[in-house]
Amino acid sequence: MQLNVGILGATGYAGAELTRILLGHPQTAEIHLSSVSFEGESIEAVYPNFLGNTEKIIGGLKKAEDVIESADVVFASLPHGVGEDFAKTCVEKSKAFIDLSADFRFGADEPTFAAWYGKGYRHPELRRRSAYGLPELNREAARRLAASGAVIIGNPGCYPTAATLGAMPALARDLAGNGAIIVDAASGVTGGGRASARAYHYPECADNVSPYKVGCHRHTPEISRNFAAISGEIRPVIFTPHLAPVNRGILATIYIPLADAYAPSPALPPKETAPRPPSKEISANAEEIHAIYTEFYKGEPFVRILPFGAAASTNQVRQSNYCDISIHLDQSGSTLIIASAIDNMVKGAAGQAVQNMNIIFGFEENAGLTAIPALF
Amino acid sequence: MQLNVGILGATGYAGAELTRILLGHPQTAEIHLSSVSFEGESIEAVYPNFLGNTEKIIGGLKKAEDVIESADVVFASLPHGVGEDFAKTCVEKSKAFIDLSADFRFGADEPTFAAWYGKGYRHPELRRRSAYGLPELNREAARRLAASGAVIIGNPGCYPTAATLGAMPALARDLAGNGAIIVDAASGVTGGGRASARAYHYPECADNVSPYKVGCHRHTPEISRNFAAISGEIRPVIFTPHLAPVNRGILATIYIPLADAYAPSPALPPKETAPRPPSKEISANAEEIHAIYTEFYKGEPFVRILPFGAAASTNQVRQSNYCDISIHLDQSGSTLIIASAIDNMVKGAAGQAVQNMNIIFGFEENAGLTAIPALF
Amino acid sequence: MQLNVGILGATGYAGAELTRILLGHPQTAEIHLSSVSFEGESIEAVYPNFLGNTEKIIGGLKKAEDVIESADVVFASLPHGVGEDFAKTCVEKSKAFIDLSADFRFGADEPTFAAWYGKGYRHPELRRRSAYGLPELNREAARRLAASGAVIIGNPGCYPTAATLGAMPALARDLAGNGAIIVDAASGVTGGGRASARAYHYPECADNVSPYKVGCHRHTPEISRNFAAISGEIRPVIFTPHLAPVNRGILATIYIPLADAYAPSPALPPKETAPRPPSKEISANAEEIHAIYTEFYKGEPFVRILPFGAAASTNQVRQSNYCDISIHLDQSGSTLIIASAIDNMVKGAAGQAVQNMNIIFGFEENAGLTAIPALF
Amino acid sequence: MQLNVGILGATGYAGAELTRILLGHPQTAEIHLSSVSFEGESIEAVYPNFLGNTEKIIGGLKKAEDVIESADVVFASLPHGVGEDFAKTCVEKSKAFIDLSADFRFGADEPTFAAWYGKGYRHPELRRRSAYGLPELNREAARRLAASGAVIIGNPGCYPTAATLGAMPALARDLAGNGAIIVDAASGVTGGGRASARAYHYPECADNVSPYKVGCHRHTPEISRNFAAISGEIRPVIFTPHLAPVNRGILATIYIPLADAYAPSPALPPKETAPRPPSKEISANAEEIHAIYTEFYKGEPFVRILPFGAAASTNQVRQSNYCDISIHLDQSGSTLIIASAIDNMVKGAAGQAVQNMNIIFGFEENAGLTAIPALF
Repeated sequence: MQLNVGILGATGYAGAELTRILLGHPQTAEIHLSSVSFEGESIEAVYPNFLGNTEKIIGGLKKAEDVIESADVVFASLPHGVGEDFAKTCVEKSKAFIDLSADFRFGADEPTFAAWYGKGYRHPELRRRSAYGLPELNREAARRLAASGAVIIGNPGCYPTAATLGAMPALARDLAGNGAIIVDAASGVTGGGRASARAYHYPECADNVSPYKVGCHRHTPEISRNFAAISGEIRPVIFTPHLAPVNRGILATIYIPLADAYAPSPALPPKETAPRPPSKEISANAEEIHAIYTEFYKGEPFVRILPFGAAASTNQVRQSNYCDISIHLDQSGSTLIIASAIDNMVKGAAGQAVQNMNIIFGFEENAGLTAIPALF
Repeated sequence: MQLNVGILGATGYAGAELTRILLGHPQTAEIHLSSVSFEGESIEAVYPNFLGNTEKIIGGLKKAEDVIESADVVFASLPHGVGEDFAKTCVEKSKAFIDLSADFRFGADEPTFAAWYGKGYRHPELRRRSAYGLPELNREAARRLAASGAVIIGNPGCYPTAATLGAMPALARDLAGNGAIIVDAASGVTGGGRASARAYHYPECADNVSPYKVGCHRHTPEISRNFAAISGEIRPVIFTPHLAPVNRGILATIYIPLADAYAPSPALPPKETAPRPPSKEISANAEEIHAIYTEFYKGEPFVRILPFGAAASTNQVRQSNYCDISIHLDQSGSTLIIASAIDNMVKGAAGQAVQNMNIIFGFEENAGLTAIPALF
Repeated sequence: MQLNVGILGATGYAGAELTRILLGHPQTAEIHLSSVSFEGESIEAVYPNFLGNTEKIIGGLKKAEDVIESADVVFASLPHGVGEDFAKTCVEKSKAFIDLSADFRFGADEPTFAAWYGKGYRHPELRRRSAYGLPELNREAARRLAASGAVIIGNPGCYPTAATLGAMPALARDLAGNGAIIVDAASGVTGGGRASARAYHYPECADNVSPYKVGCHRHTPEISRNFAAISGEIRPVIFTPHLAPVNRGILATIYIPLADAYAPSPALPPKETAPRPPSKEISANAEEIHAIYTEFYKGEPFVRILPFGAAASTNQVRQSNYCDISIHLDQSGSTLIIASAIDNMVKGAAGQAVQNMNIIFGFEENAGLTAIPALF
Repeated sequence: MQLNVGILGATGYAGAELTRILLGHPQTAEIHLSSVSFEGESIEAVYPNFLGNTEKIIGGLKKAEDVIESADVVFASLPHGVGEDFAKTCVEKSKAFIDLSADFRFGADEPTFAAWYGKGYRHPELRRRSAYGLPELNREAARRLAASGAVIIGNPGCYPTAATLGAMPALARDLAGNGAIIVDAASGVTGGGRASARAYHYPECADNVSPYKVGCHRHTPEISRNFAAISGEIRPVIFTPHLAPVNRGILATIYIPLADAYAPSPALPPKETAPRPPSKEISANAEEIHAIYTEFYKGEPFVRILPFGAAASTNQVRQSNYCDISIHLDQSGSTLIIASAIDNMVKGAAGQAVQNMNIIFGFEENAGLTAIPALF
């Protein structure tokens, strides 16, 4: 099967990355692009990197309505709150709608969405046709919806993707004890989009590391809901994003208090002046947890549990749809420390969106997503 | 008073930074440099940036013994375990010895040192003349020792400096409740020194973020001891260092569970599906804690509490001896989140060593350390 | 046709890039890898980015002899002077040998090779079976050799690739007048390989630009020979390489004095105090030259002449086999200024080597090389 | 003598750098700052790096008129064409005016200014009181003017500073033969100022090298005029700027055809297939030229001729007022290749402006400019 695909908001970074991936996808026929800012121009005028690769792209940058008209599946990379009308049109016309904004990430939980995004839903009823699009968590829901008619996918946020994949086996396999889970994460600058701003001005963010939106980032409730969906329990989540001087990538370091069964006894270190290096018992516990993670993600095409002893790093997933995960314990053995790395533009946005398309259309899940990361 | 100063290990990054700062220090007369790797060469052959600025430097790179002979105060930037004999010589000759290795950071607590550094002390008795050199914590101890004869300063590690300054007011003012304190930190690549290694090879660490030595970094016990020294209580400390693609700088993000008095009641978020954005009450709590921090560091020349609402960033302290601290709460108000930024080569190494020299010789504490950071 | 391919020196950067490209090539069956430094290990132990993508790779890192035995075509990414014996073996066994070192770039001109590389050929007679592998210049020679038996390809240097493609139309179409052609170029740090060295230590080359090997870089005679091969004339070539803080990419800025026919009359600016901005006549000349370049490279799959007015940049070709070229004139109109950008690891090394394989085996010239650059 | 200084346009990068340098200058008393964009705010609200260092700064960001009123010397870091009225006021009030725009760089040569900057002078007569402020070229003219009343300094452009200092000895000592001089240069991103723009958006210029304004950059006529002023001859100048992913720094590589007396005979390489590596004779010529450069700049406080064999690099001058120069020849010995490195914000802007202040007020020429560069 060959699809005609449409991309709304093709000239933002996520839109351009969607364009790049879909141009190389074996099941795309025509590609239609919309842009408000650059309507009427060609995509290669806005992104010269596409020069010579635009055969599949039909016409220049068009109106959203025209793109929807021509497409079997529509990707929307628009500001939050802007795409609901387009989603409605797609549902009415039985076209799949894969939304990279937050509009469909919260399903029926409009109060949480409204509390963090400042307004309610425009068409609440659309959530009956929507699924949260983290395949490793929710693949079957998307498939089921697709089987029964038009489907809307709420493609996850970048940080929630890294955080949820990193914590999922611990939560699903009851490794986590009580207490807050802390997600401390760093993102590359493409996460801020293509619009110019002081914070993303080269001399201000090169050679610099800094946290932002501490205690109030909108991805916090999405992470929290995912954790609850996995473990069936609501537990406190603390999330701190940082900006790091890399183009692409998210590295999430996740601190999960271990359940008693996995922590050494006593769970607290002995009352010495200072902690000791990790004991052999603790190291053995870590290996056991590593085995649980490996087993949990067996068969997943895009999650790689790194060999025990290695640490996840963003350059090992750059330009790929992988999520790399490494497993560690603190020296006392009472806290599980997970490092989870993704390319924020691929698994954290465009790649995952294409993975969702593959799932709902029954393609190979990695179709168009076989790029091997390059390290350097 | 003018001092003749000596630097052992002048050709490592910390040694070179000491050289740079001491060349501009108003109370240095002669500067004597040692290097094992480059003995006999000139410092500007090894660091061309010094060209034209070497008037105070006497001779080329010399043997450590010759440097000690000529100096009133000796800085040692040597591998752990190498400098104790030199320290002994200095004590015998009544010269101050400021050590940038870990050898004198643990005082009488040889077991902790031995557990983490793999060997015991060579001259344990020297610890009677040594003080831990974090001035904001321990300034008076250094002064007292200096007043009574030769003094050895155990200059703190870079991460412990950022972590301890960030957590100190919370620990000293009883803001911290029970539970582990988590220090999640990123360092620039100069922290790895000048010796070539795969991990610091440009194409492997540019455009990359990655944790390392998770659960087993040697700065963990130093941080833990500092926290205990401040609060009088031993509590679990979890420390995860990361490597970020910046030249200089440490950004430590510190998670401290709040004592009940400062947390909202109930301390846990309400049983909703997902957390809500921070309430006004929580924001008011944060401002109160901000005021406590501001008051705590009043008069400290090198600690800057950023205005409420700002976030610490490494580029605002680059090439300066400042520690910038910003105060935040998580959305539930139950965890204090501190961002603490230093230049790892200055406040995290050479600058703090010079600050210690200033203290023990009774100079202005900021003598030679008045450089204003440049942001870009 | 499916090929079994071998890579000698698979753990250097060019070898790893060859591995990555050949893993994704539709006509590769088995891939065999050799490494002296890591013999016996797996490729993903040395390059964790390959995790999960090694199905085609047969066994671990092996001896060169064993790799040759199993391969239909052998790529060699070895130090200069090391691969000739392997080339001989391949010729004897009628296997294609694609060499990324300088050994086969100079053909019968052993004196030039010896003068710059410090030793003569080990098996001079092999040059009867070798062709210089810049397809846009020499595609037919490679094809002809391949048609008549075993072929050795001397894959071009990275700088000569960018410089030659940038200057070729000017030299072939008699745009160039007398006088030296200056090639001023900047390279990313991967050009220095994976071996650790002070010059490539992150803190020494981050945030830094510097020339190196000025007036004595070994790519000078290769560039000079290419220019002579195109125009039939030997003219002075001046080449200055710089190191820039990017991972991948070469940007060559090429200054070519224009022949009288293309320069304004008089060729020199009027005797005013200072030059004036470019006139309309000069701008029209530039457009004419732009048209000549566009026509010259019509049909070439990997050369993109940028739209008139744009400037080549390394990020527009990153991870692709493209050479992007932009055309400019100085304000007086007497000197043609060409900017030529490639990814030094792809078109400057591994990608071009695969392009050569495609040519000699009659595959689509862009097989395995269809990656679209991402810009960010 | 203590001066009250004013800075017009204090919140741009050059203005902020002026503020930083003047805060540390031993002869500044009050500092007054103006800003159109941030009038009424404090400087540390706009540049948090200044926190705790603002004692000398009187009030917040003010109107230009109020700053001029309070100052003995006024620095203007304003867009071209905006500052002439302020300069007039200063001359009338006998205050020194040091202008970092192009308005006073061309002296009486209004036609050249008008041709490149698109409008003529507003107050042409002011040029009778102005001098071009490249001290190494024009120190005495500035002194003479200052001795006779109000003086206006046209502070040089960043590229012209690096290019002129690099070429000056060759031009002044008749090393240069006929033919164009080519200046190929790379600049850090601070050169583009603090205003957000696509070209300076982190993900677009990180990991990227690209030329811009090829053949039409406004610094071309300034370079050309300087070369003519030194040698008494007008010769073609070709200038190509590039943007490199560094914060600060300019590296200019300058190609000067050698006069017959310094070139080998015959000047052209022998008619071989390709050039040979440089001969001993050529190397000896290079050393002779190195000696001429060293002698020429003897006593200059801010020009460092690097040891023969070294190459200039931007990190060796970062945050200092130095210009580092290295001397090279091409392999044929017929072209002199000079690498000239400055910090574009210091010697290329604010530092040189302060150097000019020092000169016209008779201070030590390096007062406030003694920062030693750090390399890393």
